[in-house]
Amino acid sequence: MNNYKLTIQYDGGRYKGWQRLGNGENTIQGKIENVLSEMVGEKIEIIGSGRTDAGVHALAQTANFKISDNLAEADIKIYLNKYLPQDISVTEVTLVPERFHARYNATDKTYLYKIWNEAHINPFMRKYSMHIEKKLDITTMEKAAKHFIGEHDFTAFSNAKSKKKSMVRKIHSIDIEENSGFIEIRVRGNGFLYNMVRKMVGTLINVGLGEIQADAIPDILHSKERNHAGFADACGLYLEKIDFRDWETWRRN
Amino acid sequence: MNNYKLTIQYDGGRYKGWQRLGNGENTIQGKIENVLSEMVGEKIEIIGSGRTDAGVHALAQTANFKISDNLAEADIKIYLNKYLPQDISVTEVTLVPERFHARYNATDKTYLYKIWNEAHINPFMRKYSMHIEKKLDITTMEKAAKHFIGEHDFTAFSNAKSKKKSMVRKIHSIDIEENSGFIEIRVRGNGFLYNMVRKMVGTLINVGLGEIQADAIPDILHSKERNHAGFADACGLYLEKIDFRDWETWRRN
Repeated sequence: MNNYKLTIQYDGGRYKGWQRLGNGENTIQGKIENVLSEMVGEKIEIIGSGRTDAGVHALAQTANFKISDNLAEADIKIYLNKYLPQDISVTEVTLVPERFHARYNATDKTYLYKIWNEAHINPFMRKYSMHIEKKLDITTMEKAAKHFIGEHDFTAFSNAKSKKKSMVRKIHSIDIEENSGFIEIRVRGNGFLYNMVRKMVGTLINVGLGEIQADAIPDILHSKERNHAGFADACGLYLEKIDFRDWETWRRN
Repeated sequence: MNNYKLTIQYDGGRYKGWQRLGNGENTIQGKIENVLSEMVGEKIEIIGSGRTDAGVHALAQTANFKISDNLAEADIKIYLNKYLPQDISVTEVTLVPERFHARYNATDKTYLYKIWNEAHINPFMRKYSMHIEKKLDITTMEKAAKHFIGEHDFTAFSNAKSKKKSMVRKIHSIDIEENSGFIEIRVRGNGFLYNMVRKMVGTLINVGLGEIQADAIPDILHSKERNHAGFADACGLYLEKIDFRDWETWRRN
């Protein structure tokens, strides 16, 4: 079997998220599978590295799928981009070793959150950022963000629908940058629970607005109660990058 | 009478352009006039510095209107942004001398054109840039652009609907910049005919694609024939800035 890795960008605005739910549901996985199945003439399933929620975007989601046909990477890319809707774009197609698995082999994920922090609405970014009118105190948000770094039980920052065996995840870094009216929060970790980034960012926003103290984060983590965290809009969130351990050796094999 | 100047940003995607056409038409001028008329309780007309076509955006369109009420600038801004649709945003309201006229006193205008010049679609900018898959030759485009600088009869780069007395306009500068997949073309001049920027940019694109020579521009200008120029999509065009002569003295008076 030939195993292909896809790198995908999408505007998640009109989709019910990444994961295919039923045949009629509007999902990104479903759209891509339909086009691939048309291409090879049989039903194709793709494995995504992570599931994004309804309305969440991706700058570089990755996925893989296996087919018996030996197709050129460039031809698959052209076919997909020709038949996919304009809000989904395949930026890379790479032939990978058969054992490569987009979910199991993903080691780290980076999410980017965009906040538009001016009094007036930004007409061009209104669907691609969360609008917070009141100026956020970034220094305090950075102080609060430090409490998330490291390994923690993130139950308090998850959705009740999370049914993972372990709620422990490791956050490697959180960077907050101001950039001409925007505040960009970049979170890198080894994995994320359902809604986890939006709850972390929502809580950082509450800190930035002065509604809670930066030092309240450890207490919220320890409480394991879901009603203390904030919740940021889906439209500001982007899955930015998936890391694979020793990606270069995957390519060489 | 109190004369107020507005600075306005808009996503022109769903509008039939700036200029009010009838009462039922979906125009930016119409939307703003409706909200202002509601605010003061009488019919208000606003004067825009320039008319943007259907689908064209603005980063800083300006306009002025006169009312007998003496309202605080901040209150007008809050009211407008509260009741205008989310794709129109008022970024500044300034009380100006009664003789200030947004159209007559505008000396120069700057338009920005965004081209997305990668093979794949950009899902986030598909409504805010023109997608050209084939790599454009920027050096040749810059050479061609130089021919537009100065005072010329722009009949060949206008729409047949243009019914101006003079078709002569002066272009001060054209800058072309590459920026992470985008090519941005910035055109500054003392005035523009209907469709003129889109026809200039469309022709520069033809040059960049190697379809016509950079040195063909003077011939097209001299021909005064409208069928030689290219025509770029409305969605890539932004009215970026309006200059007023001695703006600081307007503010001081």
